Amino acid sequence: MTDIKAINIMEKFSLLEAQWTPHIIAELNGQYVKLCKLKDEFVWHSHEDEDELFMVFKGTLIMDFRDGRSVEINPGEILVVPKGVEHRPRSLEGEMVFNLLFEPKETKHTGEIESELTAKELNWI
Amino acid sequence: MTDIKAINIMEKFSLLEAQWTPHIIAELNGQYVKLCKLKDEFVWHSHEDEDELFMVFKGTLIMDFRDGRSVEINPGEILVVPKGVEHRPRSLEGEMVFNLLFEPKETKHTGEIESELTAKELNWI
Repeated sequence: MTDIKAINIMEKFSLLEAQWTPHIIAELNGQYVKLCKLKDEFVWHSHEDEDELFMVFKGTLIMDFRDGRSVEINPGEILVVPKGVEHRPRSLEGEMVFNLLFEPKETKHTGEIESELTAKELNWI
Repeated sequence: MTDIKAINIMEKFSLLEAQWTPHIIAELNGQYVKLCKLKDEFVWHSHEDEDELFMVFKGTLIMDFRDGRSVEINPGEILVVPKGVEHRPRSLEGEMVFNLLFEPKETKHTGEIESELTAKELNWI
């Protein structure tokens, strides 16, 4: 009971220095709520078994898909990328995006791809 | 692929007329993202097997607990109520709260309690 408290999302973002490395802010039902600041281009990847929810708090997140489509996610919007669908998140040039993720605890940062952007560990913030 | 699109949360709220009846806006990993407008007092209840995430977009959501504590959740804040913990959501007097829920698809609206506020069905919006 004692640890049931409200979490302010923008306050948590203000503590987050790393780019592209998600940090956990909450856990429920085998899922994590994570925050990530992202800038420029991430790597193409997919998650075999996990759907992934993106919710933007600042900036414009662009999600590229292999069929050539790109979807914009603006503050106050969400996007669900279904499992198995290859995607590449990126920002508008030079812009920093504040993004919330909701996904199963097992979700690997960059799926089966190893990249220099792949987070080595997953910490709480 | 064709249905991967951004969902604007406040636009969805503007379509929602019912009070206290959650509507689904997204589904992933056996969980629903739901929106609910709430005003005044809900019923005391708990969910035996499901943790429940609340995220406020407008107004102040107050969560009462049986130990006498009340937690305020303001816009941009989240709160996780762990499974088994009895809680009562309410608004400040007369205020309408816009709340997003994230929880497993099986979650019953008012747990094992039947109330006149219990949603009879769960629809998408």
